Amino acid sequence: MVDIIGWYEQHFAQIRADYFRFLKFQSISTEPECKTELIECAKWVRDYLAHSGFTAKLIETKGHPLVFAEKKASHPNKPTVLIYGHYDVQPIDPIELWESDPFEPTERGKHVFARGAADDKGQIFYAMVALRCLHELGIPLPANVKFCIEGEEECGSLGLTHALPAIKDVMKADSLLVVDFNAYDEHTPAISLGARGIGTFDVTLTGSTGDLHSGSLGGIAYNPNRALVELLSKLYDDEGKVAVDGFYDDVIEPSPAERDAYPAPHDKSYYAKAFGLEAFAGEKGRSLHEANVFRPTLEINGMAGGYFGAGFKTVIPSKAIAKLSCRLVPGQDPEKIRHQIEHFLRKHCVRGMHLEIAYHGGAPAFRGSLHSKLAMAVSKAAEKATGTVCKKMIAGGSVPVIAELAKAIQADAVGMGYGLETDKIHAPNEHFDFHRFKLGFITVAGAIKNL
Amino acid sequence: MVDIIGWYEQHFAQIRADYFRFLKFQSISTEPECKTELIECAKWVRDYLAHSGFTAKLIETKGHPLVFAEKKASHPNKPTVLIYGHYDVQPIDPIELWESDPFEPTERGKHVFARGAADDKGQIFYAMVALRCLHELGIPLPANVKFCIEGEEECGSLGLTHALPAIKDVMKADSLLVVDFNAYDEHTPAISLGARGIGTFDVTLTGSTGDLHSGSLGGIAYNPNRALVELLSKLYDDEGKVAVDGFYDDVIEPSPAERDAYPAPHDKSYYAKAFGLEAFAGEKGRSLHEANVFRPTLEINGMAGGYFGAGFKTVIPSKAIAKLSCRLVPGQDPEKIRHQIEHFLRKHCVRGMHLEIAYHGGAPAFRGSLHSKLAMAVSKAAEKATGTVCKKMIAGGSVPVIAELAKAIQADAVGMGYGLETDKIHAPNEHFDFHRFKLGFITVAGAIKNL
Repeated sequence: MVDIIGWYEQHFAQIRADYFRFLKFQSISTEPECKTELIECAKWVRDYLAHSGFTAKLIETKGHPLVFAEKKASHPNKPTVLIYGHYDVQPIDPIELWESDPFEPTERGKHVFARGAADDKGQIFYAMVALRCLHELGIPLPANVKFCIEGEEECGSLGLTHALPAIKDVMKADSLLVVDFNAYDEHTPAISLGARGIGTFDVTLTGSTGDLHSGSLGGIAYNPNRALVELLSKLYDDEGKVAVDGFYDDVIEPSPAERDAYPAPHDKSYYAKAFGLEAFAGEKGRSLHEANVFRPTLEINGMAGGYFGAGFKTVIPSKAIAKLSCRLVPGQDPEKIRHQIEHFLRKHCVRGMHLEIAYHGGAPAFRGSLHSKLAMAVSKAAEKATGTVCKKMIAGGSVPVIAELAKAIQADAVGMGYGLETDKIHAPNEHFDFHRFKLGFITVAGAIKNL
Repeated sequence: MVDIIGWYEQHFAQIRADYFRFLKFQSISTEPECKTELIECAKWVRDYLAHSGFTAKLIETKGHPLVFAEKKASHPNKPTVLIYGHYDVQPIDPIELWESDPFEPTERGKHVFARGAADDKGQIFYAMVALRCLHELGIPLPANVKFCIEGEEECGSLGLTHALPAIKDVMKADSLLVVDFNAYDEHTPAISLGARGIGTFDVTLTGSTGDLHSGSLGGIAYNPNRALVELLSKLYDDEGKVAVDGFYDDVIEPSPAERDAYPAPHDKSYYAKAFGLEAFAGEKGRSLHEANVFRPTLEINGMAGGYFGAGFKTVIPSKAIAKLSCRLVPGQDPEKIRHQIEHFLRKHCVRGMHLEIAYHGGAPAFRGSLHSKLAMAVSKAAEKATGTVCKKMIAGGSVPVIAELAKAIQADAVGMGYGLETDKIHAPNEHFDFHRFKLGFITVAGAIKNL
């Protein structure tokens, strides 16, 4: 361990430079104009791993390419661990709220600000650096190590999901280490043994062939904005539950043991202080923590219709749009939920309004085992790195492909990471810091050695 | 009349060039960056009138300046007519739907496409041309003629309204001719003897200090988009009425005579054909025409929250916004309605969500007399110009300042114009045509002579 920390400190300037280079790629997977940058970014990741003793290549998918790399253990008949992460990032809007260019990594205080600083470039990169360190120090690998670093995690992992049947043998592993999760809190490491699934939708209501004058046609034309708010408001009942018929039918309630294993990390006052929250969603009869990890949600991630710039425009818009996503828990099938939501929207939309629904894709929830070898190895390494007992968590977020990837390659999955909810991932001014970067580096190197 | 038409045809190239110059000014009153263009546009209007025998000047207001001009009748003790119009225009978004530059007037077929081609540059300009024609032909004016052409009609006429107490004596007139209205249909002229009032609001809901990740905080944070759709959906009841408490209390129902005087110009099939409407707003127990002119409305003119670009972003936004406007009928006081709407929004907004309401201003409905001298003079001129009986109408739209202007200067107001609902005013590809421009020119010239 002393060797590893010494190596890190000795090579820090290069590590920092490489991390910043990685962050500069504008690898926003959901934006078509970023396609070339995504490919360049993938090649950079491939080359980094190739220079760390790995056989590395790009695997084409119907979306952005994924980086695959492997390196054999020093002895035969050793177990295999597949390390998963992603090189794509979220969009950057609203750009005016960023205090520095999202693609020009900037240090302010102890933080590194950039889109992807944490999610997931910062996190997967410390894992990459850990394997380079082991390579450069000539430390023998006690397990075969593979990397799968994809470019579509932020937009549903469709390329990887679609490619799985063809590449599952290449990806084959005993354990799947997903480096895209949070710590328990600033001082306490954690492994994540679950995450919610997801499904995402675009909803478009069209009322007329063009925008209308809200005086001349007001009282005559049904305003698509009105139709949209009426429709979306029906998605929720008075108890904070999703009102879509059948939405909870297949939800598997956590066992008492599972509840005990994953206690709430925070209380209301934490959220009030960290995010200024005063209005809480939750669900009647459920704690906020339950609502966040053991219960599904349906959110309106975006909506727009008509004029919303400075001043005023008295328009009845032709169209109004919304973007919806659901988070799913064990038992829920994304396809079934998709049909339930589409059916609900069609049933409740006002007659005569033209309704279009586009489905971006979905993925089921994942659960890992509390007692797998990898869980033990990572926990132990994290405890050694931090000097603090490693907690076990379930995430409210999603890493869409985990459940299907783990199932396809028949591996037991463990999530790890040093992210914090205050890192502003998916928001302006995303940041990470080198203290946690180093802890991640030490934990990954230690976990590999522990295997 | 022969003289006038001959003059028009002889000078058409110059009229067209001047009209197009007028349209090129980017005089969007609601956009702060257009301030200089608005001033240049006002000066251009002033100079045009000054070259038509008028004493013309700009009157500063707390907003954009207004153009005032006057020319005496050829004999003393004649009545005075004040011609009102506006040189400001609506915003141009969504710009991508325009088939040509909104500020580069373009002729396609018989139409002239440009922002303001009809509303109101096209309409007020034919009135300006009519007075230049009378001047150049040396035709004596049978009445004193004044112009009041303002620059804030599209954003609430606050400058003019505020200036009224100070300038009402300058504006003093027996009749107020508002050249900003529609014809009955393509073949039938009309005078408008009523318009709805208006009030406009910005509503902002803030749930957190920054955007949140919809996985990490989903189930915990109350999504402002959800709070907004729940709040706005409550504005309407099941019968299509506005649910704001007291909203209809002061509505003066039209008399049977008034109903008879203003029959419905169109039926449902017209709206379906002209605008692709299949979902109609209306109000239970009321015809579409009643709902459009005799009943108030409340519209969501714009709303936005979260991410609504290409692809997807799993965000719980910090804020969601909406822009609301109400159209008011006789009896309704804009200030009272303002307080009712604000009270309703505060009462129904979910606890803990931060609600801000900004009021842009309002104006009451206007009604003119069916039998005023000006109404007769305009009707007669329009009938002569078109060869068709002139209809009487009430508009669903608003010319916000009319009621207050007419009251301040104690004039009887008449609306005229050759606009059509299909002109796409306030929408992309606004257009007008020279056939109607010429009819407007002839009608204004004729009306002045008829006085």
